[in-house]
Amino acid sequence: MLSKRDIKLIKSLRLKKHRLTNKLFVVEGKKSISEFFQSNFSLFKLFSIDQQYFNLKSKSTQITESDLKRISFLTNPDDHLAIFRIPEKKIIDESKLLLGLDGINDPGNLGTIIRTCDWYNITDIICSNDSVDCFNPKVVQSAMGSLSRVNITYLDLKKYLSSKSFNKIGTFLNGESIFETKINFDKGILVFGNEANGISSGLENELKQKITIPRNNSKNYPESLNLSNSVGIILSQLSIKF
Amino acid sequence: MLSKRDIKLIKSLRLKKHRLTNKLFVVEGKKSISEFFQSNFSLFKLFSIDQQYFNLKSKSTQITESDLKRISFLTNPDDHLAIFRIPEKKIIDESKLLLGLDGINDPGNLGTIIRTCDWYNITDIICSNDSVDCFNPKVVQSAMGSLSRVNITYLDLKKYLSSKSFNKIGTFLNGESIFETKINFDKGILVFGNEANGISSGLENELKQKITIPRNNSKNYPESLNLSNSVGIILSQLSIKF
Repeated sequence: MLSKRDIKLIKSLRLKKHRLTNKLFVVEGKKSISEFFQSNFSLFKLFSIDQQYFNLKSKSTQITESDLKRISFLTNPDDHLAIFRIPEKKIIDESKLLLGLDGINDPGNLGTIIRTCDWYNITDIICSNDSVDCFNPKVVQSAMGSLSRVNITYLDLKKYLSSKSFNKIGTFLNGESIFETKINFDKGILVFGNEANGISSGLENELKQKITIPRNNSKNYPESLNLSNSVGIILSQLSIKF
Repeated sequence: MLSKRDIKLIKSLRLKKHRLTNKLFVVEGKKSISEFFQSNFSLFKLFSIDQQYFNLKSKSTQITESDLKRISFLTNPDDHLAIFRIPEKKIIDESKLLLGLDGINDPGNLGTIIRTCDWYNITDIICSNDSVDCFNPKVVQSAMGSLSRVNITYLDLKKYLSSKSFNKIGTFLNGESIFETKINFDKGILVFGNEANGISSGLENELKQKITIPRNNSKNYPESLNLSNSVGIILSQLSIKF
């Protein structure tokens, strides 16, 4: 049975400060929850309207559909809601290409980028400290299980970049075309900026190479592409060269 | 001054049935509103906290910031809210590549796809009748002005495709790789399916060529890419060949 304490805890995990204090986050739906199990994330509690499905008696609570509606962050809840523990920081694997995000703001964008990185076998994303939290329920939802396979690290991105001598490439509106530039991408970092303002001026000097996706029309519009679309287009282009 | 009638009208335009009855839709923010003016959309009414900006006395109403908060669909309203008339149906320009969407559901995805089409000079999108409405406020917002330059037509997509003899290509999880296939794309239609279910089985037979974006990892995950990311990746790849 669902307790008042459970309800209070789950609702509190909508906010970053409570996720950090409790070191817990919410995953919904059987597909995503299964993927977190497969990636050895540690389950804290599971709430299911079909308790047979995961067959985890000790940590699982049978709930009703109306209970689920009460606790779910979704408009259309999907049978199960799990609380997992936020894992300890992992070491960044610098032997492979990294993705850097400077001040990403939109949770849907971050989730989609995590999913796209998973598709293109990018296993580490490095976010500046002012970026949206990857355990935000909207990020978890739009990443669709890929958050269980992609390691996200938050740090001082400027400091990190200036301490590294590997290939550092930034995406700008006025860089060299991705179709005409030679990009060496066995390892290094590819950095994207904030949705509205791009890469911050403080970071620009750290990025040796500037690249762009050419606009294929004769107008000055639109000003830019959606951020997650830009990541997809560039990773797709690089994937041919991997 | 903002009247009760104005408030009622604006709030009603959140719903498709009221947009269709009134033949009106809402655009917010000076950048997007400017782009609709440039594309000769017909203004019905404008509500501004800075009436000097557009300098349109007869159709403009000076409002306060708290008025704007009351009528805006955004969490952070942006100075101006305009009501434009939904234009009459335009003829589809079949001399160029068309984008087809079969049952697209998510307004953010449709908005992003409209913006990406604008970038790649696709001027006509054809949606099946069960697709999300392009004048939905969330679509207008994420399209960021590009809806003023891309013509969206809703029709019976199966009937339309079967009546046409041009190049008809569908995107599937098991098609030929976009990097290894010869795609003839001066004209014709490129069709994408619904976020969860892909292209409907009724439509599949109409699509002569099936293409896919290869997954660049050795796992079976993620199952798919985000829909708008897929559109961006394929249009970007085609843009090299245009």
